[in-house]
Amino acid sequence: MAKSSKNLQDLFHETLKDIYFAEKKILASLPKMAKAAHDSDLRAAFEKHEQETEGQVERLEKVFTLIEQPVRGKTCEAVNGIAEEAKDIMKEFKDSPALDAGLIASAQAVEHYEISRYGTLKAWAEELGLEEAVGLLEETLQEEKKTDQALNELALSSLNTEAQQAAQ
Amino acid sequence: MAKSSKNLQDLFHETLKDIYFAEKKILASLPKMAKAAHDSDLRAAFEKHEQETEGQVERLEKVFTLIEQPVRGKTCEAVNGIAEEAKDIMKEFKDSPALDAGLIASAQAVEHYEISRYGTLKAWAEELGLEEAVGLLEETLQEEKKTDQALNELALSSLNTEAQQAAQ
Repeated sequence: MAKSSKNLQDLFHETLKDIYFAEKKILASLPKMAKAAHDSDLRAAFEKHEQETEGQVERLEKVFTLIEQPVRGKTCEAVNGIAEEAKDIMKEFKDSPALDAGLIASAQAVEHYEISRYGTLKAWAEELGLEEAVGLLEETLQEEKKTDQALNELALSSLNTEAQQAAQ
Repeated sequence: MAKSSKNLQDLFHETLKDIYFAEKKILASLPKMAKAAHDSDLRAAFEKHEQETEGQVERLEKVFTLIEQPVRGKTCEAVNGIAEEAKDIMKEFKDSPALDAGLIASAQAVEHYEISRYGTLKAWAEELGLEEAVGLLEETLQEEKKTDQALNELALSSLNTEAQQAAQ
């Protein structure tokens, strides 16, 4: 069988560009979501995640260097779509007690996208013998999982707020 | 405080339309992914998930009925983006041993999107006292988690295949 010109290393590189674009997009969205949030704990969570995301971007830049490729993103329509939806929610639910629940849902959709991407990249990095990259990707993967868990807890408290306001 | 016209019920309805569109899109994509897959186990997994997805669409239709709304989707750019990416992979990695790894990555991105949506919808249905909907959404949520797990296992075997072929 003739060897294909595209291999797992190409796939790894393509997916790295995808998540790099996604992280940059998230970095631009988080301050808007923090500003929009009604609940101060949710605002603080978005601000904390913005700091974390900066570190995640730096880790990705190190991975580009490890595979000797330029640091460059590639449009990720999935994250663009979720960010667009978050913008609609901020507009349509601006004065609603359900706003925070909507923001958390968008943030969790992003987290899950990232969890799937970092899980995949880590498995591929292992296969490709990129040990240092495995460590960097694993570090971010664990952060994303923790963020999703923290959002779960905030979701419950935001639902309680909505319920209280609805009962008034 | 003046009561906003939009509440959690509206958010639930909007998100239901989003995931309904997504499931229909997935239903259209899965046969193409099954046809493209090199590995027969992966092909079988996509075919099995196509059957499951049909049941998931029916469950969503029941939820629309429960909230007395017409069965109607709303464009979900996130899933459109992932589907577009899967199409690119099928084209660019057609003859590559890395094709299956790429298809699995796309399928897992979709599964994670769905896991986040069904988790959110289930929490909101609980809050809204939609007990029957909670049961339907939970059933699908568990199916999506199992599918993601099955894809994880197939990913490992597909990476082994890639490694063997690369060594030849």
